[in-house]
Amino acid sequence: MSEQILEKLIKKVSKLPGLGPRSSRRVILHLLKDKEKLFLPLIQDMNDVADKIKNCIECGNLDETDICSICRNTSRNKNVVCVVETVADLWAMERSNVYTGQYHILGGVLSAIDGVNPDQLNINSLENKLKSKDFTEVIIAISATLDGQTTAHYLADRLSKLNVKVTRLAHGMPVGGELDFLDDGTIAQALKARNEL
Amino acid sequence: MSEQILEKLIKKVSKLPGLGPRSSRRVILHLLKDKEKLFLPLIQDMNDVADKIKNCIECGNLDETDICSICRNTSRNKNVVCVVETVADLWAMERSNVYTGQYHILGGVLSAIDGVNPDQLNINSLENKLKSKDFTEVIIAISATLDGQTTAHYLADRLSKLNVKVTRLAHGMPVGGELDFLDDGTIAQALKARNEL
Repeated sequence: MSEQILEKLIKKVSKLPGLGPRSSRRVILHLLKDKEKLFLPLIQDMNDVADKIKNCIECGNLDETDICSICRNTSRNKNVVCVVETVADLWAMERSNVYTGQYHILGGVLSAIDGVNPDQLNINSLENKLKSKDFTEVIIAISATLDGQTTAHYLADRLSKLNVKVTRLAHGMPVGGELDFLDDGTIAQALKARNEL
Repeated sequence: MSEQILEKLIKKVSKLPGLGPRSSRRVILHLLKDKEKLFLPLIQDMNDVADKIKNCIECGNLDETDICSICRNTSRNKNVVCVVETVADLWAMERSNVYTGQYHILGGVLSAIDGVNPDQLNINSLENKLKSKDFTEVIIAISATLDGQTTAHYLADRLSKLNVKVTRLAHGMPVGGELDFLDDGTIAQALKARNEL
């Protein structure tokens, strides 16, 4: 087959997270089945997003405005900031509908293997934010992976110089989780952090 | 969250085959991580495809030219035509690197449930092709589903009036398949069509 442009697009789409050559082919052929109703509107929407969506200068969230709707929202708690790795994590926190404070997106975690050092993460801007504004608590909501926990400890250490309480999300059994399926590390953490009923 | 355009795009992508809300979010956030290197080039490639790729007027395959590279290829067998459902099926046949004849894309299969009748499939153009050109064999390569087999029989019936041999792909054990995992229908077909060694 000599469909050069088409092959190029399928190859590009197949590199996206969660997709492969087969699913990429399927998606592209589906879109080409009805160019007018499926393909062109999708391109239009992608153009809109590329044009208008930017990172919030305060927290790093994605929005159409320089300061995102969460940072602009005056009814949210201005004294607590939650540190997350990525925009996806911020959205996951928001979906839980429990947290009403501010956010700060770190942009990743420290990693010796991937060569991510503290300068590549938004730690300086977090320190400046904590110094210049009236925060009483920093909640570290970073993944419970090895790199994530290293980052959490590094952050806790750096922020300990500032006059602010540093907390992290609790570790334990996921809600709906069965004990039998939990790994040893989680059971150990859940046992250590057990609460009186 | 009030990211209207972003939500619209994520919703649209989540409707694509094989994707859902979670994978759609993941893909879009991945693309937005590096707009210049990931998102904009993808939009550019999609625009190229939308502009230049069209259906071959002969067989229905997708290519940059009115007549696709397969139909243009003079070294291919001009006496055999293989009837497939979709472009994806044509590509699957090509990947097997065994077939060197012509193709005809039907555009689907007959379906009482989905309300697909013979007029909605490219059957008339197939008949015209068989009448006007010098074909000796039509290979029906339609899925071995209920609707697919109905379509195959309908086609065989309609084409029987023309002076052309109508064949279909063999049914049997897939290469590499284990007998234990085959369904009863396949085993029955493979037994019925058994060959002498």
